[in-house]
Parts: sequence; structure tokens; C-alpha cells
Amino acid sequence: MIIVLRRDATEEQVGHLVATIRGWGLTTHVSRGTERTIIGVIGDERAIRSKPLEAIPGVESVMAVLKPYKLASLEFQPERTRIRIPAVKPGGAPVEIGGPSVVVVAGPCSVENRDMLFDMARVIRGAGAKLLRAGAFKPRTSPYAFQGLGVEGLRYLAEVRAEVGIPIITEVMDTRDVEMIAEVADILQIGARNMQNFNLLKAVGRCRKPVLLKRALAGTIEELLMSAEYILSEGNREVIVCERGIRTFEKATRNTLDISAVPVIRRESHLPVFVDPSHGTGVWPLVAPMALAAVAAGADGIMVEVHPNPEQALSDGPQALLPKTFEKMMKDLQAVAQAVGRTL
Amino acid sequence: MIIVLRRDATEEQVGHLVATIRGWGLTTHVSRGTERTIIGVIGDERAIRSKPLEAIPGVESVMAVLKPYKLASLEFQPERTRIRIPAVKPGGAPVEIGGPSVVVVAGPCSVENRDMLFDMARVIRGAGAKLLRAGAFKPRTSPYAFQGLGVEGLRYLAEVRAEVGIPIITEVMDTRDVEMIAEVADILQIGARNMQNFNLLKAVGRCRKPVLLKRALAGTIEELLMSAEYILSEGNREVIVCERGIRTFEKATRNTLDISAVPVIRRESHLPVFVDPSHGTGVWPLVAPMALAAVAAGADGIMVEVHPNPEQALSDGPQALLPKTFEKMMKDLQAVAQAVGRTL
Amino acid sequence: MIIVLRRDATEEQVGHLVATIRGWGLTTHVSRGTERTIIGVIGDERAIRSKPLEAIPGVESVMAVLKPYKLASLEFQPERTRIRIPAVKPGGAPVEIGGPSVVVVAGPCSVENRDMLFDMARVIRGAGAKLLRAGAFKPRTSPYAFQGLGVEGLRYLAEVRAEVGIPIITEVMDTRDVEMIAEVADILQIGARNMQNFNLLKAVGRCRKPVLLKRALAGTIEELLMSAEYILSEGNREVIVCERGIRTFEKATRNTLDISAVPVIRRESHLPVFVDPSHGTGVWPLVAPMALAAVAAGADGIMVEVHPNPEQALSDGPQALLPKTFEKMMKDLQAVAQAVGRTL
Amino acid sequence: MIIVLRRDATEEQVGHLVATIRGWGLTTHVSRGTERTIIGVIGDERAIRSKPLEAIPGVESVMAVLKPYKLASLEFQPERTRIRIPAVKPGGAPVEIGGPSVVVVAGPCSVENRDMLFDMARVIRGAGAKLLRAGAFKPRTSPYAFQGLGVEGLRYLAEVRAEVGIPIITEVMDTRDVEMIAEVADILQIGARNMQNFNLLKAVGRCRKPVLLKRALAGTIEELLMSAEYILSEGNREVIVCERGIRTFEKATRNTLDISAVPVIRRESHLPVFVDPSHGTGVWPLVAPMALAAVAAGADGIMVEVHPNPEQALSDGPQALLPKTFEKMMKDLQAVAQAVGRTL
Repeated sequence: MIIVLRRDATEEQVGHLVATIRGWGLTTHVSRGTERTIIGVIGDERAIRSKPLEAIPGVESVMAVLKPYKLASLEFQPERTRIRIPAVKPGGAPVEIGGPSVVVVAGPCSVENRDMLFDMARVIRGAGAKLLRAGAFKPRTSPYAFQGLGVEGLRYLAEVRAEVGIPIITEVMDTRDVEMIAEVADILQIGARNMQNFNLLKAVGRCRKPVLLKRALAGTIEELLMSAEYILSEGNREVIVCERGIRTFEKATRNTLDISAVPVIRRESHLPVFVDPSHGTGVWPLVAPMALAAVAAGADGIMVEVHPNPEQALSDGPQALLPKTFEKMMKDLQAVAQAVGRTL
Repeated sequence: MIIVLRRDATEEQVGHLVATIRGWGLTTHVSRGTERTIIGVIGDERAIRSKPLEAIPGVESVMAVLKPYKLASLEFQPERTRIRIPAVKPGGAPVEIGGPSVVVVAGPCSVENRDMLFDMARVIRGAGAKLLRAGAFKPRTSPYAFQGLGVEGLRYLAEVRAEVGIPIITEVMDTRDVEMIAEVADILQIGARNMQNFNLLKAVGRCRKPVLLKRALAGTIEELLMSAEYILSEGNREVIVCERGIRTFEKATRNTLDISAVPVIRRESHLPVFVDPSHGTGVWPLVAPMALAAVAAGADGIMVEVHPNPEQALSDGPQALLPKTFEKMMKDLQAVAQAVGRTL
Repeated sequence: MIIVLRRDATEEQVGHLVATIRGWGLTTHVSRGTERTIIGVIGDERAIRSKPLEAIPGVESVMAVLKPYKLASLEFQPERTRIRIPAVKPGGAPVEIGGPSVVVVAGPCSVENRDMLFDMARVIRGAGAKLLRAGAFKPRTSPYAFQGLGVEGLRYLAEVRAEVGIPIITEVMDTRDVEMIAEVADILQIGARNMQNFNLLKAVGRCRKPVLLKRALAGTIEELLMSAEYILSEGNREVIVCERGIRTFEKATRNTLDISAVPVIRRESHLPVFVDPSHGTGVWPLVAPMALAAVAAGADGIMVEVHPNPEQALSDGPQALLPKTFEKMMKDLQAVAQAVGRTL
Repeated sequence: MIIVLRRDATEEQVGHLVATIRGWGLTTHVSRGTERTIIGVIGDERAIRSKPLEAIPGVESVMAVLKPYKLASLEFQPERTRIRIPAVKPGGAPVEIGGPSVVVVAGPCSVENRDMLFDMARVIRGAGAKLLRAGAFKPRTSPYAFQGLGVEGLRYLAEVRAEVGIPIITEVMDTRDVEMIAEVADILQIGARNMQNFNLLKAVGRCRKPVLLKRALAGTIEELLMSAEYILSEGNREVIVCERGIRTFEKATRNTLDISAVPVIRRESHLPVFVDPSHGTGVWPLVAPMALAAVAAGADGIMVEVHPNPEQALSDGPQALLPKTFEKMMKDLQAVAQAVGRTL
């Protein structure tokens, strides 16, 4: 950590600052320049990162030298994390996430009813998707909108999983539901609005199921990795991070899908990175081009919404792909994956 | 609701759309212009607001005519909500929020220890603050940072409340803690990161304590009022909304305090509006000027952090005011409150 | 245009509004719903788009039905614009922009000296780039930074163009320089900071050279197309629009490259769309992945910075590719272009 | 300047870096910590601020210690700049900007015709405004909107100035017009869209008239002061900076007025700070509350739009105040100015 002093900082202030930092168990290195005196902190700065150094008299600014996350960093773990989702049925193939193959997760936004869920599971699996997504508990901006089927939806998910033999990813919104959902789901999803619901992060961190963590609408990449760090630090090392669009001034799309998050995260962290172009754009004709872009940029997986009849969807219809559009996209994805040296 | 059709929409598509809307129990009004056909939906559009109209073939865009919130709107309730916090001790004065008097809430960011809490309660009360703020459960970006004293902190809050006789506002982060915290606190705080933690909103909505709801870093004013609507629709009519800074590209401040949210909300809603210039700026010398600005713009209350020794604060030290700076601010606030026809 | 009236709008106000609109030469259609009265404006709303309808008593909100641009729209011109840059030397091949082939523009940020410019022209051409980019006039945030070689740089550009036989694109920043630069350049570039320098747009609109128009840091896609409309409406139909990153809260990249702008613009406009991943990310290791993403999403061209020795570059060194990295990227681009049915 | 090396930086890279910096005429100070080696640059870092240090092998990140502006900084000039606008008519009072008195600038958005301009000049002056604002050259998003009366408008401005005896502020958009406009205007305005039109900044920097420089929609405070530095470094020391709203995700207002820019700039710079709540909100009922907030936060001046008949305004009608609303606002402003120890 580097502490820049004010031009008018007194010797007494320098002494007080040095003493304070020593009191926290670190050593200092004072450098007097022509314009400013600068204090370098020697030792693991993470120990004092949350200390209010800016509040100490004479301090002008404080600059961190190290990233605030540790377990999530490529510096800590140079080999990439690979997550293995066991086969649901005996004899089935497991799914590997974070390896050479790009993994596609697809399904309806919500579990709406049993039949549709079974239909969609078969459609997306037939087209090459490896996991089924569908929400039983739904975060909705309006209290008057469909809130998900809840426990009934979870039951349908368990049934489709067992019968069709496809692993399931579904969202958990409440610390009280973690255990119940972890009994059904192969991967637990933390939604964008809960990226900094720290109690929920701790709860899934203590769970033995992989977690897909979505970036918040105003979440920086550093904060996304810090939220992953919450899960990792509780002992759960199977975390996937997912870019799903950030909020900007642009109104042509529901969110601005930050594709550059993919190479940025891959340079900083060993965790697999997914992209969700459905929420990332909010408009179905943009989903396929942005899925292709994500894979071209190096994404480890894609998560998209598919619905047999978007105009009757109970949530997020405008961004859902029709089965036939999804099938076309899968073919194009395969070509792009190959072009960048991966498989689908 | 207004539905604009694509230029190339067919008669069949128009017919299908009209039939679909009727199927949802509303009537339509078709207007054929020179450039576009437009369908107006007659009836309470809130019933179909979450229907995926954009997914219906032939539709170009959909425009809402009404605001999505109802109970929170000034149209629904023209008189302003006033919340009465009863006196803590017999013979004490109750606090009214939303009336002519501007209410100041102050205190340390976190409950750090018993003594400091008692000191601060007396200091801020002596300077004219009406409620004490302090967090027992703290949302922190890093899992390695101080996470609050938890239940122990809550006990200190109960003690200071009883002995000093000042009402308490403290944050609730987990649905499992609502009941426990509601037994101690006079007002429950929902933090910015939980503005769209819908299960938590429902839980405090079923509670009989007033709620202060903070705006999320990427929360629009409309979404803030929709989150208030969640609480209101569960039966709790005592909601205060609080502007505390939004996330923008500007780096000189921790957040960009959107003072214009105050007059915007007052034109849309009957709920009291507070402003938190401590989190809104993140830099203590900006707190007083922004508190004055908030009151000048019509805020019903101000919430600020005060600490006896910011450089040793366990959280958010750089934005905490020293007691003497707080006392000076209170005097200036009084002058500005008077200038806009209010009291402190 | 749709005008939503306030719930308490009087009959007199309705009458006044209808009369006002008729006074502007359009007709109206009044629809009285259960919650609001709505007035539809019949006729070409572009005629009254800049009228201050919101300022008329009784009006709650105004919604546009049509896009504000006309000449730039796909509705106006359904066939895609193709721009032909003639061969510089007799016997050379012309370059087509907006056709099936993806066009790569490359070169140093600034013209720094004659030799380096010639070297880079040969390097990028050898690797398959079709046009050379390099700035003679440079917009710099600081008055103390290198401002470009100016007229001298322009002379070098003319020389490299003639000798190497590669067409040139260079930036124009001042209305006074348009003619001079148009004598040398094959394409005039309008930089992001000048996207709404309307006098400059008009000046290049009266010029007979194609224009590459970059999106502003806070420019919406609609505003970008409106700025293109300025150029088109002056008679110059050869406009390329270029996504180069928008400003958001994210700090890991210099800007947030909005790849979704590519499919959005292609659905709205017939103009060719380029992407500049160098300015869009500001960090050279992100340039290649984002260039691949842009082509996967449908971009008609890519513009990147290449420098023989980035650490000595006079501007934007951190985002420049070394020649060998550029050559590797070109190979990968070719594979991705093929995967999406295009050539390079 | 502080240079943080990568963990795997070699001794050779350290040596190369040190040699490179010495080659630029500065000295270095190498500090080897437990996690990273850090190089401090001794000397005036402004000399190497635009060097591409991040492009040098082994460098992880570069942190500036000093602000990039010098002439604009309070460190360079501790006393606040006061600008004196001489009386227009003999015997009239000069206007001082940057002193204890808050200065109000008002008038119509555009010069629409001679009579209205004269009326408004008298109205705003009668209510206490010190300068008249009105645009002759108008930057408009659409080429089809009213573009201002141009030279004819300038003539009316000269007439109203001479006859009513009120100083004039008007916008200059083109380097070719600077001289002509400087002959009429008492203050030249640089609009938000031209904040980084560097040639225009240089041109007004060589002019002997005060300049009001507006913040760009995506302009950081640091960039605003850097643009002021352009003007100052050309020799013109009379610069006012003006906050007028930044672009964010919030849609309830046209822009988000960043009131905190006022105290931030006053802590960094000696230049007077104005606030424009008309453009900052875009909605007239928000103008007065935000003007009061700006003065409470320490603004040196306020700039607002007033129109006798907003519904017929040729530009920006929805944000214009009626004369009587303006007069009421002036009374409230006076009370708030007094409350913060200033006059109007």
C-alpha cells in the first residue's frame, strides 16, 4: 500500500502515521520526493486494507498495490479451476466446466408448469445444451408480477432432472432456502441483485454444490471477484462467475453486456467465466450475436433463455429464444468455438 | 399501455394482438396513423405490465402510460405520510418524520464497543440529532473486513436506547434476523445492496416497525419506489426512502449523490425522503455541504456518520465527521432549514 | 407521437393542446381511457419532435413513435450502404466497406516520424490490413501532451499513401482543416469527442470523402445515428459508424466496449459498423479477444493500433499491439470471420 | 509517480525501466517489498505523465501522485480567482464573479426574436439576475431542429446589451466564430459537447474575454479542470467552470446534476464554480429546488433558463421557468445564500 501525504504534512503527522501502521503489525518505508512525501507499507497490505488511512491527518490519498481478493486470483492459483458436474443417471456423461469445451446452459426463465419444463429440457438437450436452467423462486421488480412457483417448481425440477437425466441450475434468493434447493440443484445460482447479499454468499459457501455467481448491475469486476472470494473463503472452491450486463446510460438494450469482462477475468482469476446474453441484452434478436461474441472472446460457457411460446411467457418473454432459433444459434456457436480452438 | 406496431405488421398480427389482450381481460383501441398503427390498451395496465408484449409478432415497442407503483404514489395517496416514532422513555418527546421538521439521524458506522456507542449517542443528541444510527450487522465488500459485532452489538444498542433514551435505527441484512432486530430497533434499515432483496422486503413488510429503505447503487428512482411498494403491499405503511449516492463514472467521490432524487420523489410519492451524504460522497469534508444541499432541495431528513476518532474506525472512517464538525454542521443545517421554511 | 395527459387535465387544456398541434399542421386523435386521456398525433411527427410539448399545461409525458433519424434508417433505405475506396495506385484493388468482407484498419495512434510510418504501413498491409490509420492532429486530454505533428504529419501520410499504395484514414478536429485533410485522406475520421461537434459534422457532410464517425463516450446509439444523419443530410452518403467504448463505472478497462451496438445498429441502419477495440479497452492484451468478439457479432470492420515499440509511443502506447501480436490476431480474425460466413 | 512491478518482473526489466525513466530526465527510487517491487519517480511527474509506462515489460500498474492540472489547482494558486465584468453602460455597476456574492445568469435558451429578448432581459434583471444568457448558435442533436438565428441573433444580443445595459454570455461552437462572438459577448460559453474540443479551447484561451466552460456529459471533474487548463495555459486566466449534469442510468431527469462537484472543485481549484439546474434536470419544476441546493453547497453562481411562453419555445421549453417562477426562485435563493453566509 502506498500512502501519499499532503504537501503541507508536518513531521509530526509523518511520525504519527508511521507509528500507527507499525501498531497494526506492518513496517513502512518513507520516501521524500520533491513534491510529496510517500510512505510505502511493507508486508501483506490485505491486513490493513479496511483501515481508514484516508482519515489520518496529513494523508492525501491511499493506493492499493495488491488486488483485494486472494483465493480467487490467478496469482494464488495459477491452474484454471475445472468443475465436474457428475452424470445425473448412471451411465450418463459428466459435464466439465472450465475445460476446453464451451458449456451451454439453457431453458425457460421460470418454471411455469411441468409439461413445458419437460419439453424444453428435451429440446435444449437435443440441441447440445449440457444443463437446464429454470427459476422456481424469481426475483421480480414488481410485487404484483409472477413470483415463481416456489416449492412446486422445485419439485418439477427434481422430476425433470431424474427423468430426462439433465443436470439443473436454479436460483436461490434466501438464506432459509439454501439447503432445500441444494438438495435438488446441481448448481446454485446467485442472481445479479444478490451479488452482494453477503449472508447468502456465506451460506452457499458452506454448501457442497457448485455456485454460479452473477455480476450485479453496478458491480465492478473487482467486486464480483470479491463476492466469489466470500464463497471460496467459506470452503466452497467451485465457483463460476457470470457476466450478464451492467447498467449504463444506453437505452437500446436492457443492459450493456460487458464482453470485455471475459478476458479481464481470465487474466485475473482461475475461475470459469460464463456469459448470459439473454439478460445482457433483453431483446431476443441480439442474443445469438452476443453469444457468438462471448465465445469468440473466450467465455467458458453461455447461459440463454428458451421458451416454446415467448408471447405467453410468465417472465422475460421478450428475451427468450424460440427452440428453432436456439438450434440455429447452437450450430453457429460450434463454428465460432472451433475458430478459437475450443469445442462445444 | 400503448403498443406501437411495426410498419410491416399484417392485419392478422393486429387481430392476434387484439385477441390476446382481450384474453387478459382488457379492451383495446386501434388507431391507424400514416406511419404506424398504434393500439391503446383500455383498463388498468398494471394487470398486464409484466406480459411479454414485445415478444408478440408485429410489435415494435410498448410504452407504459401509468407508473408501475400504486400504494407509493401521490396519485393514490395525496397526503404526505408522517411517521411517528414514540418516545423511548416516559415523558420523552416522540419524533415525527415527514412533517415540517427536518430529522437528523447520526452515529457511528458500526457498533464498535459499548463505551463509544454511549459517548456518540450523547454527543449527537446534544447537537440536536433525533435518532441514533449504528450497524450491528455490517455488509462489507471483503470477507476479511470487520463484519460487525452482531448480536453483541444489538445488545449494546438496546442498552444505549434504554439508558440514553434515544430511538435506534439499525440495518437488517437477513430474513432470519428480522424479528430479532425488530425487537430492539425503532426503525429497520434496508441497505443499498439489499434494495432488491425481495424476500427481505417482504419480511420487513410484515413487521410492525418503520423501515428506512436505501436506494441501490444502480437503482432507478422508479425501482426504489417499486421496492417501497413491496413493503407497503405487505401491509407496512411506514416507509422512508433514502438517497445515498448512485454509481457513475466519476471517481472524485465514492458515489454520485443524486440530490435531484429528492424533488423527483416528492413529486411522485407521499413517502418521506432522507439523504445520506456520508455514503453519498465517501469523503468527510463533502458531507456538510451536501447535507445543506439536501435540506435546501427539500429532504425530510439527513443521515450522517459521526465517530470520535475516524482514523481508528472499524468501518468507513474516511467519511465520518468528528463530533465538533457535526455540531458545526447542525448549526448550518438549522439556518438552511429555516431559509426553506422548515425547522430542524 | 403520443401525448399522455395528467389525470387532472381539464377539457380546456385538451382543447388548447389539440389546437396547438393543429396549428403546427398535424391532426390529432383523442382517446379517453379509464385512467388517462391520450392524444395521438397523426402525420410525420419529425415535424414537431423538437416542440416543447411537455411544457404545455395538462401534459404528463410525451412518447415518440418514430426514430428521430430518417436517412440513416433501414426503414428509409433497406439495402446496406457499401462504400468503395478506389485503389491508390493504378492496378491496385479498391477496398469495399460494408460488403461481405470484414475490413481491418490498422496503424500507429499518431504519426510520430516518417520512417516508423512507412514501416508500419508495410507491416499492417503485409498482414492483411486494407487501410492505414494514423493521427496528424491529436485530441489530447492534457495541453502538455504531444499534440500531433500537424501539417508535417499530413505530408508524411500523403507520402506513405503514394509510395506504399495504401489508402489512409486520419482524424479531422477543426472545421478550418477539413479541406486540407480531405485532399490527403481517403476517409475522414471524426473522433469520439467530436461526435456532437455539429459544425464539424456539417463541414464533412459537404465534403466528397467517406467519413468514419466514432461514438462519443456518453453517446447513445440513437445520438450516434443522429450525428450520422447530420452528415447524410448535407449530401454525403458515405458514412461508417464506429463503436469505440462508452464510459461506465467499470475501472478495469479504459472504456466499456459495447459490442451489442453492432447488432443493434445493423437492425436499425444500413450504414457499415466498425469497432475499435484499442480505444475500447485501453489495454493491449484485451484487443485481440475483443476484435474477435466484434467480428463474431457482425462488425463490418475493425480498427486497431499497432506500434513497433509501444513503450516509446508518443500517445496511447499501453493499448498498441506489437507487429507480431497483430499478425497473430489477423489469423484468428480470419477463422472467426469464416465461422460467421464472411471473409477478411 | 509510482510504478508497481509484476510479481514476476526480472532484474533486467527493473534495470531497463530505471534506465528509461532516467532517459526522460527524472530519478527513481526502488523499493523491494515482500509482494511487489515498487519504483517511485522523483521529480515533476507531469513531464512523463503521457509516457506509456504500462507498455514497458514487467510493469503491472502506474499510479499518479500529482493531479494532472497545474494552473487550475489551488496548490498553484491558493487565492480564489475573481473575475470582474465591467459595467456595460457608464455609471453602471460591474459584476464580480467568484467573490462573496452569488451571481445569477438567466435568459431564454435561444435568441428567438428581438422583442422577446428585450422583454426577458428586463424581467431577469428586475428580479436580480446580473447577466443575460441566450444562444445565437445552438448545438442541437437533430439536424432538423432549430439551429439558432446565428449572426442575426448576435446582432440582437449586441442591441439588448447596449440598450438594457446588461452584460451578455453566449455560446461559441466553432473556432471560426470566436473573434466575432468575442466582440459582442462579455463572457464566452463553451458548451458541454465541446468541453474536449481542444482547438476551440485553445482559441478562446487566446481571446481576452472570460470563458464559462461547461462539464461534458461524460466528463470527470479532473477532465473538466484539464480543459480549463487548456484555456489557462494559453494565457486566459478568467475561467468559470460549470456543472450542468452528467449522464447516468437514471431516466427521471434529463441528466443527473452532480451537486457534489461544487465542493469537490472548490477543494481542488481556485476557479469559480457555477451550476446550471435547467440542463442539469431538464424539467422545470426541479430547477428551483436544485438551484437552492447548489447555493447551499457553495456554488458561486447559477445559470437558468427563463421563457415568457415555454410551450412555444424554439428549444428546451420543458426546462424553462416562467418569469413569475423565476422571481419566486430568486427570493428563495436570497434566503439560502444568506443562510450560508453569502449575498445574492
